[in-house]
Amino acid sequence: MSTTTRSRLSPDERRSQLLDLGVRLLSTRSLDELSIDLLAEQAGVSRGLLYHYFGSKQDFHEAVVRRAADALVAQTAPPVHGDPIDRLRSSMGAYLAYVEANREGYVSLVRGGAGGTPALRAIHEEARTALTDRVFVADALGELVPDTPVTRLVVRGWAACVEDLVLAWVADPTGVDREQLLAVLVDSLPALVGTVAGAGTAHD
Amino acid sequence: MSTTTRSRLSPDERRSQLLDLGVRLLSTRSLDELSIDLLAEQAGVSRGLLYHYFGSKQDFHEAVVRRAADALVAQTAPPVHGDPIDRLRSSMGAYLAYVEANREGYVSLVRGGAGGTPALRAIHEEARTALTDRVFVADALGELVPDTPVTRLVVRGWAACVEDLVLAWVADPTGVDREQLLAVLVDSLPALVGTVAGAGTAHD
Repeated sequence: MSTTTRSRLSPDERRSQLLDLGVRLLSTRSLDELSIDLLAEQAGVSRGLLYHYFGSKQDFHEAVVRRAADALVAQTAPPVHGDPIDRLRSSMGAYLAYVEANREGYVSLVRGGAGGTPALRAIHEEARTALTDRVFVADALGELVPDTPVTRLVVRGWAACVEDLVLAWVADPTGVDREQLLAVLVDSLPALVGTVAGAGTAHD
Repeated sequence: MSTTTRSRLSPDERRSQLLDLGVRLLSTRSLDELSIDLLAEQAGVSRGLLYHYFGSKQDFHEAVVRRAADALVAQTAPPVHGDPIDRLRSSMGAYLAYVEANREGYVSLVRGGAGGTPALRAIHEEARTALTDRVFVADALGELVPDTPVTRLVVRGWAACVEDLVLAWVADPTGVDREQLLAVLVDSLPALVGTVAGAGTAHD
């Protein structure tokens, strides 16, 4: 991009562009390795300007992880129409593709959810809530999952299972092919809901 | 306990006793709230003596979490004989009872697994491995779970699901009774394994 183009951007657009670059850098690096120095070097701007945009390294990290979480939620939006299990398969395929393309950013998102700063925990919790709420919205008739306190709990557990499976698989895919994993990610939702006694009452 | 009794303990026994007290204190407190000062006050010994036994606050925390993890693994040992699903039910009942009695220690164990120090991550990984390996040992004939790379992955995902379900439930059990949760914890293992295409080949 030319300096001329760059200078036409508003501060919000410029900040947004820097965050996109941060997310790209995070796809192959841990959060600890994503420094303001590295971003400055890659963006061709001064450290001072970055501190102007992001305040502190921690604020910068939180903004990048939030951007990554928003992208995950956006890219995994299921089709509006179709069979609930087909929509789930489409969404989980996009989820897996996102993690394959953004492995370290995904690790940062999930790790931050358990042991990070309160802000990182909140970002992970919001992303997980967006993904699990979607199950109930996309399945409003309860074809896969009736909406009860225990199924809400189980869908949360399913999301944790998905995160762990995907993280373990990208770290070491030996003996497990992508299609096999994707089938488990999709079929595990109705399978887990099926363990709830009386979960089928929506159909009774 | 009298001072006379205390003085007869060997250093190893004394350290062990202090760790037990640390685990008890951790059952209702976060790791951040478990200070050397608090342990010294509760044990009636000097801070200096505690530093002699544990080196640093971080070493003390790691030793307490390791003690809690060992207790979780020990207390959830399934019966040696019986139907695999009955043995699993017995083990998961003990797991749930452990978490109910040691909530904060369990949170520290699981949180440390994702975002803690490398030592805390290793303790969590070892505890989870002990619990999931047990599934394959206690089920050597593959009655519930044939031993393949993909079922190994799925059992790991099941363990992550169990951790999340139990943590979410102890934090807010509204609308979900204990028996309902326990049924989900037990039945979710064969349900998840059942999503693996060809998982039944051990029986073919």
